[in-house]
Amino acid sequence: MSLVLDSAAQDLLFREARTANTFTDEPVTDEQVQAIYDLVKYGPTAYNQSPLRIVLVRSAEARERLVNCMSEGNRAKTAAAPLVAILVADNEFHEELPHLFPHFPQAKELIFSERPVREASAQVNASLQAAYFIMGIRAAGLAAGPMNGMDYAAVQKEFLDDDHVPLMVVNIGRPGPDAWHSRSPRLRYDEIVTTV
Amino acid sequence: MSLVLDSAAQDLLFREARTANTFTDEPVTDEQVQAIYDLVKYGPTAYNQSPLRIVLVRSAEARERLVNCMSEGNRAKTAAAPLVAILVADNEFHEELPHLFPHFPQAKELIFSERPVREASAQVNASLQAAYFIMGIRAAGLAAGPMNGMDYAAVQKEFLDDDHVPLMVVNIGRPGPDAWHSRSPRLRYDEIVTTV
Repeated sequence: MSLVLDSAAQDLLFREARTANTFTDEPVTDEQVQAIYDLVKYGPTAYNQSPLRIVLVRSAEARERLVNCMSEGNRAKTAAAPLVAILVADNEFHEELPHLFPHFPQAKELIFSERPVREASAQVNASLQAAYFIMGIRAAGLAAGPMNGMDYAAVQKEFLDDDHVPLMVVNIGRPGPDAWHSRSPRLRYDEIVTTV
Repeated sequence: MSLVLDSAAQDLLFREARTANTFTDEPVTDEQVQAIYDLVKYGPTAYNQSPLRIVLVRSAEARERLVNCMSEGNRAKTAAAPLVAILVADNEFHEELPHLFPHFPQAKELIFSERPVREASAQVNASLQAAYFIMGIRAAGLAAGPMNGMDYAAVQKEFLDDDHVPLMVVNIGRPGPDAWHSRSPRLRYDEIVTTV
């Protein structure tokens, strides 16, 4: 076995972890979310740009507005999950770069002065951070239920401004009864790797 | 402490792991890369679309072609790393969906018949998988050096076809002398999280 990470951690993060579709009623606290963030914030992004922003949907009123933005098949679980988070890319992340990347503070102007460059970079790098966040949810012993099926424009209009775009919505909690489908197949190593 | 993941694993994956800029000469074997993939392939993607493809640049000839595509500041480390991988998004991932997502095999036609929809989804989901792969490199006790500074069109022309787009290039190996800068700051929880 070529891995150093212990087997229990491998199971917790990857092998036994599953996308949950049902949850128990046990609440997910702000302290848990903060512990998750304070671990996964160290995951790498280009120029340490760290464009991920998170909206925690806690009030009944906000939850109802979000449920109405979701695709039919995602509504019941979004309504029922103990906590729902909107993961967001900040297209104005460059404002923080002089602080976040002191090795090359000119990056704000020299690399990221154009909005389309920022939008493309924020999309990729906030996605990296979304993956770290999903790993962090699992590291907290919770299950994540990431979802893409939604009216993205409606989510942006209801919860964000023109500089912030939704990436995905994640249900968070302890898995409930019949929380997942059977495991879907994965591509084999030789199907995805080529050597040159 | 709200996390279940043991502290050594937290350190290995996030807290002590760093983006490496120098490497020792110790080779990275295909067996190591396969062990990494066989762990991180379980990370979730939308519709289990799994659009990440990986090109391992092993020959001297291919390494030289890749180095010539990289930005000035990335050339020396790309030339010196024990292994260099090009992480790629496959915009034709939908061809595999009937196999990969048996719960809803119609997704290939009903969701992903249009190329622009596939390109946007592949970009986000291959980025999620790139993050899982970086975590996997760390799980193998190795350091990753992900890079964005390159001529993307040149990398695509040299190594890929019209259906495959490069996401990033990752140097892989054991960290060498002076492998990293001092840790850059991260945004605080209250700077990135809002509650509604």
